[in-house]
Parts: sequence; structure tokens; C-alpha cells
Amino acid sequence: MTPPLGVGLIGYAFMGAAHSQAWRTAPHFFDLPLHPQLTVLAGRDAARVTAAAGRLGWHSTETDWRRVVERDDVALVDVCTPGDTHAEIAIAALEAGKHVLCEKPLANTVAEAEAMAEAAAKAAARGVRSMVGFTYRRVPAIGLARKLVAEGRLGDIRHVRAQYLQDWIADPAAPMSWRLEKDKAGSGALGDIGAHIVDLTQHVTGQTLTGVSAMLETFVTKRPLPAETGKLSGVGGTEMGEVTVDDAALFLGRFTGGALATFEATRFALGRKNAIRIEVNGSAGSLAFDFEDMNVLEFFDGSEPAETAGFRRIIVTEPEHPYVEAWWPAGHGLGYEHGFTHQVVDLVTAIASGTDPTPSFADGLQVQRVLDAVERSAAGGSAWTEIPS
Amino acid sequence: MTPPLGVGLIGYAFMGAAHSQAWRTAPHFFDLPLHPQLTVLAGRDAARVTAAAGRLGWHSTETDWRRVVERDDVALVDVCTPGDTHAEIAIAALEAGKHVLCEKPLANTVAEAEAMAEAAAKAAARGVRSMVGFTYRRVPAIGLARKLVAEGRLGDIRHVRAQYLQDWIADPAAPMSWRLEKDKAGSGALGDIGAHIVDLTQHVTGQTLTGVSAMLETFVTKRPLPAETGKLSGVGGTEMGEVTVDDAALFLGRFTGGALATFEATRFALGRKNAIRIEVNGSAGSLAFDFEDMNVLEFFDGSEPAETAGFRRIIVTEPEHPYVEAWWPAGHGLGYEHGFTHQVVDLVTAIASGTDPTPSFADGLQVQRVLDAVERSAAGGSAWTEIPS
Amino acid sequence: MTPPLGVGLIGYAFMGAAHSQAWRTAPHFFDLPLHPQLTVLAGRDAARVTAAAGRLGWHSTETDWRRVVERDDVALVDVCTPGDTHAEIAIAALEAGKHVLCEKPLANTVAEAEAMAEAAAKAAARGVRSMVGFTYRRVPAIGLARKLVAEGRLGDIRHVRAQYLQDWIADPAAPMSWRLEKDKAGSGALGDIGAHIVDLTQHVTGQTLTGVSAMLETFVTKRPLPAETGKLSGVGGTEMGEVTVDDAALFLGRFTGGALATFEATRFALGRKNAIRIEVNGSAGSLAFDFEDMNVLEFFDGSEPAETAGFRRIIVTEPEHPYVEAWWPAGHGLGYEHGFTHQVVDLVTAIASGTDPTPSFADGLQVQRVLDAVERSAAGGSAWTEIPS
Amino acid sequence: MTPPLGVGLIGYAFMGAAHSQAWRTAPHFFDLPLHPQLTVLAGRDAARVTAAAGRLGWHSTETDWRRVVERDDVALVDVCTPGDTHAEIAIAALEAGKHVLCEKPLANTVAEAEAMAEAAAKAAARGVRSMVGFTYRRVPAIGLARKLVAEGRLGDIRHVRAQYLQDWIADPAAPMSWRLEKDKAGSGALGDIGAHIVDLTQHVTGQTLTGVSAMLETFVTKRPLPAETGKLSGVGGTEMGEVTVDDAALFLGRFTGGALATFEATRFALGRKNAIRIEVNGSAGSLAFDFEDMNVLEFFDGSEPAETAGFRRIIVTEPEHPYVEAWWPAGHGLGYEHGFTHQVVDLVTAIASGTDPTPSFADGLQVQRVLDAVERSAAGGSAWTEIPS
Repeated sequence: MTPPLGVGLIGYAFMGAAHSQAWRTAPHFFDLPLHPQLTVLAGRDAARVTAAAGRLGWHSTETDWRRVVERDDVALVDVCTPGDTHAEIAIAALEAGKHVLCEKPLANTVAEAEAMAEAAAKAAARGVRSMVGFTYRRVPAIGLARKLVAEGRLGDIRHVRAQYLQDWIADPAAPMSWRLEKDKAGSGALGDIGAHIVDLTQHVTGQTLTGVSAMLETFVTKRPLPAETGKLSGVGGTEMGEVTVDDAALFLGRFTGGALATFEATRFALGRKNAIRIEVNGSAGSLAFDFEDMNVLEFFDGSEPAETAGFRRIIVTEPEHPYVEAWWPAGHGLGYEHGFTHQVVDLVTAIASGTDPTPSFADGLQVQRVLDAVERSAAGGSAWTEIPS
Repeated sequence: MTPPLGVGLIGYAFMGAAHSQAWRTAPHFFDLPLHPQLTVLAGRDAARVTAAAGRLGWHSTETDWRRVVERDDVALVDVCTPGDTHAEIAIAALEAGKHVLCEKPLANTVAEAEAMAEAAAKAAARGVRSMVGFTYRRVPAIGLARKLVAEGRLGDIRHVRAQYLQDWIADPAAPMSWRLEKDKAGSGALGDIGAHIVDLTQHVTGQTLTGVSAMLETFVTKRPLPAETGKLSGVGGTEMGEVTVDDAALFLGRFTGGALATFEATRFALGRKNAIRIEVNGSAGSLAFDFEDMNVLEFFDGSEPAETAGFRRIIVTEPEHPYVEAWWPAGHGLGYEHGFTHQVVDLVTAIASGTDPTPSFADGLQVQRVLDAVERSAAGGSAWTEIPS
Repeated sequence: MTPPLGVGLIGYAFMGAAHSQAWRTAPHFFDLPLHPQLTVLAGRDAARVTAAAGRLGWHSTETDWRRVVERDDVALVDVCTPGDTHAEIAIAALEAGKHVLCEKPLANTVAEAEAMAEAAAKAAARGVRSMVGFTYRRVPAIGLARKLVAEGRLGDIRHVRAQYLQDWIADPAAPMSWRLEKDKAGSGALGDIGAHIVDLTQHVTGQTLTGVSAMLETFVTKRPLPAETGKLSGVGGTEMGEVTVDDAALFLGRFTGGALATFEATRFALGRKNAIRIEVNGSAGSLAFDFEDMNVLEFFDGSEPAETAGFRRIIVTEPEHPYVEAWWPAGHGLGYEHGFTHQVVDLVTAIASGTDPTPSFADGLQVQRVLDAVERSAAGGSAWTEIPS
Repeated sequence: MTPPLGVGLIGYAFMGAAHSQAWRTAPHFFDLPLHPQLTVLAGRDAARVTAAAGRLGWHSTETDWRRVVERDDVALVDVCTPGDTHAEIAIAALEAGKHVLCEKPLANTVAEAEAMAEAAAKAAARGVRSMVGFTYRRVPAIGLARKLVAEGRLGDIRHVRAQYLQDWIADPAAPMSWRLEKDKAGSGALGDIGAHIVDLTQHVTGQTLTGVSAMLETFVTKRPLPAETGKLSGVGGTEMGEVTVDDAALFLGRFTGGALATFEATRFALGRKNAIRIEVNGSAGSLAFDFEDMNVLEFFDGSEPAETAGFRRIIVTEPEHPYVEAWWPAGHGLGYEHGFTHQVVDLVTAIASGTDPTPSFADGLQVQRVLDAVERSAAGGSAWTEIPS
């Protein structure tokens, strides 16, 4: 029989729902060495967390996350709360000997992230594993992209261009949310979505950023507070709140291998819903990806004769592609949530095999350092700002 | 508390896995009036069905489908077997007072389908519901397409062009399978995938086909039998078997409203993996859909001034779109399997509300009559063949 | 010095303007063995033809085409009149020893086309050349498509699907035109645009059609006559005229090599402006072309491993591609009119080298036989109709 | 009769050929108030310029550009030489009372451009006109883009992202060319192609850049000199030359209206041939353009309900679109060279009507100032650099 893995989930909003679906689904499609149990769901409001547990399939609830960390039937803590709470929860869990999956960005500050990475390193020495949730790494097309680069199919990387474009607050009447408050979210588009394209481009190229030159902008500085007290969503009321994070982040960068890069993260690109667009040009080939067509990777093979060379639209749904064999026949595409299932698979596999999963908290810290350099450059007239390694 | 709905599933291959995921997932995202129980899974081989039940999440197993039909804890029978068994199982289940979900095509012959539709009509009079699994109707983009046509946004329909293109047996060395045997599958590309585009175009336009002119072709008449005895998959061996179904089906047709149509179903379109392509041109607008980009519907609004008119690429992931609000934020696309979850939602909702779900067995019979007319036309020199209504 | 080639053009509407641009432009980009002279333009209305000659660059005019055929300074007659006049003009020109370029379709009936092909054969024996203007053959992407098929990159052709979609008379208020009168145009969408996709698919595959099963339809049978007397264009008046040709033609077909085909030609595909779409699926590869993106050919190479296989978007603007080297650097695309220039190049080259250009009048006759079979099949309940070879 | 306009063209390489085609073609499609005469072509090598004049259709030649400026039969001087000669020729021509069309970038330095703009202003006071050849402004899709912005269809502009991607020197073995020498070309990708996207984004938005933060990079610093002496093209020999310009230029920017921008110009984007990609996001709508599909403009109308909103693919070939009515029916696309024809039309029209054409030399100077700011920022650690207005 497959041994169980008790999971405690903290948070049950968007990310909590996505993680729940992953924990429920992974064992039905993949041969997991440990069988995840949806042991406990934690949230501050008893009525709400109970309702969420029923809907999401969790067997019990807690209203204090500390109780989750203490429970003997919990072997892994999954942190899906806003960024300002990540450090405290994750460090406590690691110190209690629980494996930790922590949503991104790892933390709201470099200092927090450093403490978390340190805790993770200590825990790893005791066989306790940790992972940060850069889920998009697990989209099959991204896995294929990384593989092609690693195999040298692109040659030396010359250019990276990355955009994460959304439009959900392009309307100035869109109401306030915790994602627009610096003390809760740490930053705006930069940390929420910019962090993803930093991680993805580093993951695909196998290189890290060495420096940046950046701009940040808040287009709409005041927004209506939500009409209903205590509920940060829906339509806005008549009172206004202050937006304390960036609406958009743009930066130039350079990778360790010398490639030049442009990055843009914004929630004001009207008509773009979740456009994670990554292009990589190398001396031997090029790649292009857009999450709005997530089952496709475009690949230009520079070794083809000019007569028949062209970007080929690879439908990344073949059994040969990462994660795909477990799912459906070719052409029967996957969706957004599948990346979370793949994340569970990789994490559980690493735990069972006694290896450290990736991306690690150290990887999360490194991304945090990039975000920090972006903020410092933007504050300093876009001056080139080195990223400490 | 939500009352339970005991489900018995017959068959655990591709369709069985997709249906299982749907039964498991639907209650976690949708407020269902009945809570589906994965009561029993049936299959002829005891060891295999037990393994499948474990993997797919079913609580018990049977090796004879008749036992499923008899069980008191089963309220709904879900038929995922090859087409030659649909009639017997579905009719028995309906007569036993079980609701039935039956995979498509409804049956292998018009006669079987007629018997099934008759049984369904009798059962409906007793409050027993039935539905045929034309799942692609539940892709949000298809739902939107139907809505736009129904609202008159396309005006009078002039043209329908529909293709279902795959390539999984384009290689003559691809081995035999039950899908290539007439006595099991009824027909080849025609019934397997052609049935889908017949149903989809009728569903989207709200019209039915009145006649067809057709061609059928079997490009590769002999294929290697599977190397491993008793296993219809994987690589082929040295012995050859005879392909007794069509590899491709092409037909012209006319809809009740006067529109002209072209249909093509083939498994020999190299490079097309699951390309369900539907275009509709009306006097006021046009639509285009391709399942290889399944979260998108293209819409041309003829009322736009020429200066700014163009096919717009609607990303069908907004809360305003069918089924989408239950899932993720805009731009976070769905996958192939979500259609099955939506099918469960609609079926369970109909059962609970005492209404007949669609597509009904009568709808399935009507599609069967189209397929039959295609076969008769092809056998008769492509002569125009009316479809009995 | 390059010897001159005196050209006489009959007709100065859409096709006359396109041909004029080609005669003017070809010598500036290609090394032609003969230098075309824009000697004379013919049209029935003296004032109009004079104005047209000024605008289009012709050195003299005639109001009777017979005068053009007689002139000593004319070595080539270019026929750009409606189809009902092609046979008379072309045969007279050939008999007078003039090379002939004749717009497509070659004629309005098989009988006329046969007479023209016979006249062309006789003339060829005397060194007089003739060509029918299936200009789209000269789009570089089509040239590349034909080359890939000829080189075996597609293997055995299994499927051809061809559509020519326009929408310029989708509006029932669009006025009458000679193109909607059977006695002038011969047929409607069938001959005007269907002829192109018949020729193109035969050209690309190197095969001919052996039979068809067809439908024709006239959606709008009466249209307003043009408001201004004698002018077949612009807005319609209050009097109505009868449309005597097809609005749409659909047919199934089979090629000599066994491939199945679907064809659709319509002027009622709202939103499609000049969508010539051709797909070919073979046992080793596939191709896709759409004139609405005319500088691109999509190619699927079945010999690629599944991991990296995909339709590649070849931008057909490399010096290695047909005709391209004479024009601009890679990526600087060509337009609609360039095909006419390439036609002039090939025709003049053939004349100078004493060889017969293609497509010949015999090729034009063969296309006419396909169109005729389509009409007969449509008139006979879509029954399969063989095409005489 | 239309009065003549004597044109003298200096230079007969790529740009000279494109301009020649425009001068020849414009009067055949547009009603011009002056009839351009291809009076004289100038080049230093007598044999070559004579051959070029024959091929390109010029009536006479000069080997010293000063003679062109002096000739009485020349009313307009068209400057198609490398950038280091623009200032001297253009200023001399203006002072001689000749209208001037000067290829972009206007000059190699701000100082030269200032002198030219000053000369142009003085000449304008005497009725002598000047224009800089930012031809891409005359692509119909770009004209439509500007119109939509001007009409307020995009609202307040938030984001501009512009890329000009080519790959013709991605191969380190590609030989030296004058375009890679700073003293001839002024800069590399920055001035050659980056200048275009600076001009285009300013033209489309109707705003100018206020500052930039930039990086420049030369990936390949030594390249083989051309094998054949005196010929800067074809394959390289064994001797190496030094590349003294940038291979790629990246910069962030801000527009007068507050929009943020990213710019990237490179000749190392393998697989991209002439990809001028411009996206603009506003508070009310968005636009996207890619020259690799030049007859298309994508437009997202934010006033559409979410259910049917989407980027619409406008095929910019309708009579309602800029310049199109003079050409072909809808869907019959234009090519690269048509922009040059439109440039001639606008220039000749301005001259005849006694108005100053755009873009003016002052506009060219302003672009030069942006390029200069990019170079200074890149040299200064990417620090934010204001652009003098």
C-alpha cells in the first residue's frame, strides 16, 4: 500500500482552490510514492473555513495556522496566504519538521526570504523538504522549452523577452484588494506576476539575471473600497482607498550568459487576460510561448535550410512531452490547473526519494533579490543595479 | 445535506477515465443538487477492473455490467464501452429505472439507436433520464457559439464547414484496434469523430441536416495485430488484421434553414492532433472554432463598419461565458476534460429538477440517421440522400 | 539590346489594371529576354479606353479588338475581357500568329475551351504560344508548396481541402454585375473563384481530379440593378435584375493518386475577403496555405520526432524561394499583384526560349471540364460524375 | 495636362530600387497633381549607375550628386545614400531650391540633423519642401492605427511595446557591410531599425518620448571582410573587419502622455525576418501590429461587453482604409513596396498644394535626439536620460 502524506493547507482563496484540486487529482493520474491526504484546511473565520473545507474536500479545519503546524497527522504544510505571512508560517512549519510548499513570491522582502531560505537549508539537513510554488514551470510547453535549451538546440542565448500582461484593474473603477496594498502584497504587478516571468526565463534558460534597469508606475492611485464591509472583492463603494503598489513594472536585464532581456509585468494591458509571453533567441534557434495558447510552444530551428525554416507550432500534448503521458491522447489539451497537479507530483516524488525539490526557497530568495533590484533601480532613476548572487 | 446519487460506470479505458475525473471533480467547483458517489466500476477482467477502480477512485467493482444495473445503490449508469454494447446495457439500465449517460455514438446502427430512443422515451415518462455524451457541446466556446447564433448575431446561416482531423493512424504501421473493426465500432472516422461534428454543427446552428452526399475511404486495409496477445494497443506484431471501417468520411450537406455544409472526418490528416474545426457564415456574422485552441471563439460581427470589422479572437474564459465562473480568473484556460465535468453538472441538475437533459437519446438517434445516410450515399455513388426526420 | 515584345491588352477593368502593372513592372526587377512594350489597349468606349490607357501606361488605343489582332506592332494579345468573349478573341489572335495570354476561366463552356485548346495546339506547332492566367500559381508560397510535394516531402497525398471564400455579395442589397449573369460570366463563384482552387490543387499536387460530387446554390436570386445606367457597379437602384449564376459551389472530389478532396467556393462567407485556403495531407507531411496571409506557407514534416514536430510557419520571402530573389530582403513581403508580374516573367521567358508556357490552354480546358462536371453533378442530385481526361 | 516633377535620385541600392518603383508606380494608381519624371540617377561608378538607370527606369545619370542638385530639370532630390552623406546632400539641395526626400535616419548625429532641420525650415519659408522617409507610416494598417488612437478609441495610452526584430547577421560568419561601420551608418540596429519603431510609436500615439533608459550590445565584434574586393556583400573572406556599431538596442521609455514603453531593435532574433511589432494598450482599447502580417491590424475595443470582446483581426484592405481604394479589391493584400508609393503620393500632393509634408526634417531630428539619448543612457549605466524637446 502507498503510505499516506498528511497535508495541511493554509488559505482557501484562489490559490487554495487550485492547490486543493491538485492534491485531489494527482493520485488519479500519476503513480505517486506517497498518497496525499487532504487532512486539514486552515483559515481565520470558522464558518468560512468550514464551508471551504466542504467544497474543496478537506477532512478537518483549524482557525489558527499554528495548530496545523503542530498536528501529528500533518506531514506537509501548504502555504497559500498573502505574502506578508509566508515567512512566519513557513519557518514555523519547517522548524516543526513539516515539509513546506509555499506560494510565490516567497516573501515580501529580501530579509524575510533570506530567513526562509536559511530555515529551509537547516531543515533540509534534517530531511525536511521545501518548495516555492512557481507553478508555471510545470506547464508542459515550458518543460519542453527548458529541455530544448539544455540540449543546445538554441545555441548561445542572445535575447530574452518576457511579458506578463493582464487587464483586471485597467478600469479605474475596479475596487481595492489586498493585492493593491504594499503591507500585504509586498509589491503589485512586480511581485504578483513579474516574479513568474523572472522565474520562468531563468528556468528556461538555465541562467540567472545579473542586473536590471527598471521603471515602476502606478497609473491609478486611489480606488473605491469594496462596498461590503470586510469583503475585498466585487464592486466598489463610495469611499476611496490608496493603492500603495505598482500597477506596472518594466525592466531591462542581462543574463549570466550575456543575453539581453526585456521584462514587462502589468495589469493594464487591455484585452490581455493572462498573457505570459516568453521569447528566447539563440545563435542556433528560437522559442516563443504565450500562456493564452498554453498547449503550444513555437520553435525555430536554425539548422533547417532557409527554404523550409520557420517557427513550428508544436502542440505540446504528445506522450513524449513532460507530464503529458499521464493525461489524454494527443491534441486533447490541458488547462491552467494542471500545472498545480504536476507540482504536487514533483514535490511528493522528491519527498519520497529524499531529494530536495525545485524551485527551492533559495531559488525563491534569488527571485526576491531580482524584484528588490528592480525596485531599487526604479527608485534610482533606472540606473543599472547589480543583483547579488 | 445534499442527497447522494449513486453512479455505476461501465468501462474504464479512455472514456472511463475522463468520466471518472468528471464525477470526482464536479462537486468541488459547482453547487450540485445531488452529490455523485463513485459507487461501482464494472469491467470483465477482475484484476484489471480492481486496479482501475483504485486508480480512478471507485468504491467497488463488478465484472458483469448486469450486476451494476441491479444494484440498489446505483441510481445512474454511465456507459463507456464500445458501441456494439450500448443498446443492450442502456436499455437494460433504463428498464431497471436507472438514469443513463451513454457515450457517443449512441449505437452502431439506426435500429439499435431507435430501440434505445424508444426505451428512453418510455423511461422519461417514469421520470428516468437519459443523455448521450456529445461532450464537446460543453466546451465554453461552443456554448458561446450556440448562444450567438440563437441571439441572431449571425443572421441567416449560409455556410457551415466542419472538420474533425486527427492523424493517429496515418502511419500504415500503426496497429489494429477495436476502433478499426466494424462489428465493435460500427464505423471508423465517421462514427468516432464525424458524429461529433454532426452533433456540434446541429447544436450550434439549432438546425438539423436534411440530406447528404458522401464519400468514405479506407486508405490502409490491413494493419499489424498488436504484438501482445489480448492487448489492442502499443506496437504491432507480424500478423496482420483487416481494417473493416472507414479511415475518412467526407460529405456535403444541407441544413433545415437552407445552409450548405461540408464535413470531413479523418484520422489521416498528418500534423492535426484533435482539430475540431467549425466555421459558420451567416448573413449578419460568422464564427470559427478550432479545438486545438479550445479556449477561443472567433466571431465576425457584420454590423461593424468595414473600417474596424474583423474576426475577433474571444478568449472564452470570462465569468460571463458558459460554465467559466466556477473555475479560474480570466485567461486561465480550461482543458479537454472540463467538458466532461460540465456534462456531469448539466445531467445531475436535470435529474434533480425532473427535466430531460440534452442531448437526448432521440438526438443521438438523429445523429445516427445522419451517419447512416452518409454510408448509404457513399455506397450509392455519392447520390444525394435524404435524412429521415 | 533586348528585343521588344509588342503587347496588346483587351480590357481595362480589374484584370486589365493588374496585367498592366505586371507588364510595366517585370522588366525592372527581372532580366527578361524580351522587353514588353505597352503597345495598345483596346476597349469599346473610345473616351474610356483613352483615359484608361493614360492611367495604365499604354501607348495607343483601339475600340475594336480585331484591330489589335491585326496590328503588326503587336506580338502578344492579352485577353482580360469577360469569359463569353475569350474564345473568339483568343482564337482570332492565335490564328493571326499572336501569342496569347488569356484570363481564366479559359471559356464559359467546354465546347469553347475545346476550340481554344485546339487552336492553341495548332498555333504551337507554328511557334505561337498561349497561356491561361491562373495567376495564383505564381505566388511564391504556392511555388514552394508544389516543389515540396514534387520532392516527396509529403509522401502519398491522402487529403486535399480547398476553399475560396469571399463575401462581396453576402449583402442581398449588393447590386447586379456582369459577374452574376450566366451569359457573360458562364457561372458564378464556380468559374470565378472555384476555377482557381481547382487549378491550384492540381498544380500543387501534380495530379488531376477524376470525379466530383457537387452542390450549387444561389442564395439571392434578385438584386437591384445599378442605379446609374450602363454602369455595373456601385450602389443599386430600385429596379431588380435576376442573378443567373451560382452564389456558392461545393464539391467532393478524388485525385488521380487516390486522395480525397473537398472544395468550396463562395462569395457569402462573411468576413472572409479573399481567403484561398489549401491544405494537403500526405503520408509523410502536410501543407497549409491561406491567401489572407499570402507570404506564408505552413509545412508539417512527418519525419520530425513527435517531441519537436509541428506545423512550421515558413515566411516565403527568402532568396531561396521562387521569384523572391528579384525583390526585397527577407521578411519584406510581396502583395497580390506580384503574381501577375511573375506570370509575365514566365510567359516572356517561354516565348523567347521557344517553349510552351504553362498553364496551357489544354490545362485551362481540363479545368473547364471539372467545372462542367460540377454543374452536371449538381444538376443530377450530386451523383458522382467522372471527369473526362 | 498634369505638370511634370523632375526627380533626381542619389543612390541605387536597396532603397534606390524601392524609391524607383514608387516613382514609377504612383501615377498609375493615384491621381497625382504633378507627374513625376525619373529624370536622373546619380552614383559614383559610371558603369554601375548606367546599368542601374537602365534597370530602374531613369532617363539619365550623373556620377556626382552635385550635378543633380544643379540641374534645372530636377525639382526634387531623393537621397538614398548611407547616413554619413545625408546632411551635405540634403542641405545643398534645399539651398538650391530643390524639394528633398531623405531616407532615414535623417543623419548620423544630432548636430547634422539640427543643421538639416534648420535648412529645411529656411527652405520651407521659400516654398521648398522636405520629408524624411519613415516609410512604414504609410502601411495602411499603421495609418488605421493612428486614426483609431486619434479618434479616442484607445482612451489614455498606458503601454507601448515595440520591437523590430531581424536575424540577418545572427550568424557570426555573416560578412562586414557598411551598415556595421559607425562612420558610415552612425549606429547599428539602433539607427537602422530602432529609428523606425521610435517614429512609428510616436506617429501612432501622437505623442513623443520624454526619456529613456537603455542598453546597447555588440554580440559579434569581428566579422570577415567580403571576399570580393570593393563589394560589401555576399560571402566573407579570410580577413576580418571590426564591427563598430551596436547589434542590438533595448530601451525603456516614457511618452508625453505618461505611457510606459519598451523598445527592442536587433538583428539577432533568429527566425524573425522583418518583424516590426507594435502594441499599444489604452484605457479604452488596444492595438497590435506585426509587419510579418502587414495587411492586418489587431484591435481590442474595450467598450464591447466581456462576452464578445476580443482582439479583432482587421484585414486592412477595404476601400475605407488609408490608400487602399487606389489598389485592389478587399483581401488582395499589398506588399512592402507599397509604402514607398504612398510616400510619393503624399509628398507630391504636399508639394503641389504648397503645404509641408510629414514627417518633416524636424521630426527626423526629434527621432535623432531619441537615438542620441539612447546612446548616452547606454554609455551611462542605463541611467534615465531626458530627451530635449
